[in-house]
Amino acid sequence: MVGPAGYVGAIRAAQLGKKVACVEMERAGGTCLNWGCIPTKSLLKNAEVYQMMQHAEDYGITVKELSFDFAKVVQRSRGVADKMAKGIEFLFKSKKVDYFVGRGTVSKDKKVRVMGLDGKEQVLEAKKVLLATGTTPRRLPGVEVDGVRVMTSREALVVEKQPKSLVILGAGAIGVEFAYFFNAFGTKVTLLEMLPQILPQEDHETADVVAKSFVKSGIEVWTETKMEKTELTTGGVRVTVSGKENKTIEAEALLVAIGVQPQLEGLLDKGLSLELEKGYLKTDATYQTSVPGIYAAGDIIGPPWLAHVASHEAVEAVEGMFVAGKKPHKVTVFPGCTYCHPQIASVGLTEKKAKELGTKFKVGKFPYRASGKAVAAGEVDGFVKVLVGEKHGEILGAHIVGAEATELIAEMSLAITLEATVDEILSTIHAHPTLSEMLMEAVAASQGEAIHI
Amino acid sequence: MVGPAGYVGAIRAAQLGKKVACVEMERAGGTCLNWGCIPTKSLLKNAEVYQMMQHAEDYGITVKELSFDFAKVVQRSRGVADKMAKGIEFLFKSKKVDYFVGRGTVSKDKKVRVMGLDGKEQVLEAKKVLLATGTTPRRLPGVEVDGVRVMTSREALVVEKQPKSLVILGAGAIGVEFAYFFNAFGTKVTLLEMLPQILPQEDHETADVVAKSFVKSGIEVWTETKMEKTELTTGGVRVTVSGKENKTIEAEALLVAIGVQPQLEGLLDKGLSLELEKGYLKTDATYQTSVPGIYAAGDIIGPPWLAHVASHEAVEAVEGMFVAGKKPHKVTVFPGCTYCHPQIASVGLTEKKAKELGTKFKVGKFPYRASGKAVAAGEVDGFVKVLVGEKHGEILGAHIVGAEATELIAEMSLAITLEATVDEILSTIHAHPTLSEMLMEAVAASQGEAIHI
Repeated sequence: MVGPAGYVGAIRAAQLGKKVACVEMERAGGTCLNWGCIPTKSLLKNAEVYQMMQHAEDYGITVKELSFDFAKVVQRSRGVADKMAKGIEFLFKSKKVDYFVGRGTVSKDKKVRVMGLDGKEQVLEAKKVLLATGTTPRRLPGVEVDGVRVMTSREALVVEKQPKSLVILGAGAIGVEFAYFFNAFGTKVTLLEMLPQILPQEDHETADVVAKSFVKSGIEVWTETKMEKTELTTGGVRVTVSGKENKTIEAEALLVAIGVQPQLEGLLDKGLSLELEKGYLKTDATYQTSVPGIYAAGDIIGPPWLAHVASHEAVEAVEGMFVAGKKPHKVTVFPGCTYCHPQIASVGLTEKKAKELGTKFKVGKFPYRASGKAVAAGEVDGFVKVLVGEKHGEILGAHIVGAEATELIAEMSLAITLEATVDEILSTIHAHPTLSEMLMEAVAASQGEAIHI
Repeated sequence: MVGPAGYVGAIRAAQLGKKVACVEMERAGGTCLNWGCIPTKSLLKNAEVYQMMQHAEDYGITVKELSFDFAKVVQRSRGVADKMAKGIEFLFKSKKVDYFVGRGTVSKDKKVRVMGLDGKEQVLEAKKVLLATGTTPRRLPGVEVDGVRVMTSREALVVEKQPKSLVILGAGAIGVEFAYFFNAFGTKVTLLEMLPQILPQEDHETADVVAKSFVKSGIEVWTETKMEKTELTTGGVRVTVSGKENKTIEAEALLVAIGVQPQLEGLLDKGLSLELEKGYLKTDATYQTSVPGIYAAGDIIGPPWLAHVASHEAVEAVEGMFVAGKKPHKVTVFPGCTYCHPQIASVGLTEKKAKELGTKFKVGKFPYRASGKAVAAGEVDGFVKVLVGEKHGEILGAHIVGAEATELIAEMSLAITLEATVDEILSTIHAHPTLSEMLMEAVAASQGEAIHI
């Protein structure tokens, strides 16, 4: 239970002077650090480096006999995850968090029975328990995950042999990142999505830039397409789809990236029953579950299933438990990032959502190709789009597709959190030449005052 | 006169419905776009790509026979500058700014005589004149700039033959960027600085990381070292220095990067005299010079000689002229960036400055090596350092050295401009895994609340 909610909550509680025990079934850092955010970013970096090398001539550089070792690409990713997990274990020691490896089961009286990997059982008692068991990848009913022909993101992270062809089911952040990664190294990728756009949680215009870039780079992108049947074949899988076209696709492997499900199995003792909401633990304004003293944070309390939201919730929950007068804050504003190339990131309202809410807003856009820094770096694809309240000029949403989108979004997260206005963004001097100037220009564009377009 | 102050001021005035003429001696975009910020960023990108390729093995990628064509490296840089200059010329047309290429001379009655490149003379009349002639590189008395053995940044940008060895005099942003660039491509570089640290305007700790990285990569860095004599030799230059050591250095070329001087030659008609301050045009709170109706903005009104400050001043000056009730804002908070590797960027107070001012502050630091994103990207050198007011918890200064420092600084510029506090930064959710999380962690560290260290 020590992913980004669990370990961050534990450390924060230790900082507040509490005696803290952390129980983890597998490895410190949880899915995010071991099987999610971190190792995927390592893979994606390798892909970016490889792609840049293929375009070396653009930079006056000549390379001969460019090749890669897929096993080493995977190995670096595992090394990165291992290093970070060791880092968390080190933090536990230095911050005096007791760390138990085993399966934890919580009882009504807030006792946690830990069945160690070595078969030994221990019972921990606490005044407060924070549940943060997160989620596991959703699986396809009737299709066994064998790690070779059928994978979830977890198996894809340690795939031994690079598949020559791959069908990815689901074009959320995970599906899209793996599509970019495998395609970059030469796998023939088909990306399937039931909804009308890839990255359905993103603004339709920014998602469209990624989709077009994917198609241009050779990925087959099928939206409004439903998987009807998956059969194993001797060489891989045969996937039957319906939608825009009814057809079958043959590939060496299938990556199932259709979302997550709550991980509650074995967590609650027979005598303990917690109220659920759509399968996830229900919490009140203080992150307390239906049983007093038992709290929950992170993916296990439901969407948006994001590591940074989980950490934030855990800090809020723990401060609510132990800091006098603290009123925990429930998350409303949070960025979302997908690290494909081009990157995509957003915070706040999409245009669609703003319309649904009946909010009156103006839109400002600025393209990468008009940024001096982007041109100098040879990264001219993409744009920044901001939504600004018509009446008060407050930033309502920001959507970025292009180089460093996932870093640039931070300024807009701060702006929305602080309810910053157009005037405040424009009175902030942005360094020249940087990509961050585009945010200022997009905000200016919403008022017809952009300089460089 | 159409660098980042001139052309931005012209466009803003046109947006406000004014009839605007812009006079430029050379090329739209001025020094920044043609001979400064933009073409250097192109060169530096090539250097980064080349260096990354030398470390391809780290990413499981093998290349045989890596080589580069220096002429193509320079050519790309010129292409980028040309593209951006054309962009400005296009903007002038679309925004209806009349563009005159020639030398402009301003008279007391606000007439501007333009001596065209074709020898034709025209006289423009205006109610308001904005002077934005900027600066030129300072030269060494008695040492002629021949573009081969002795260069300023301007000549270095178009050097035909890569020098095998180079002495750079002055370790400000320009000297440091060229040191990184030439060294990356194999030139033997010696970097000389009179003051005790390179990048003297930066925090001593962040500058020190750059200095150590430079030394490790083979650059000879000599601080507290004064150039005593420069002689031309048949093969290049001989530079005699004093300081930590008295010695002579032989090299193929010398790059003089000792700052800038105001560019006022031929600008003012005999009958017009404007008040100066340390050689720069003196302006009042509305950017007006000592003669009513004649305004000035950008480098020509004195330090900090930064393109983004120049643009901001020009917008403020123009809005002050034409927007009823607008009170122009004089620049106090601005970021500074140097695009070497590792990058360095800052905004607000340095530790030294805060102490001088007697401000009580706390310091928070966070290292790149503790960031999951940095480890995944293989960019573990550097750190973030923030200064926070002890009493009110407001962000006073931020100093970043490491990957993407120049983009990450934007969030802190907004924070300081909005007088954001520790609580506000910590209540802003930063996407995981991103480098921007380090800012949040450094701010938390200032209160003893960082999670990952």
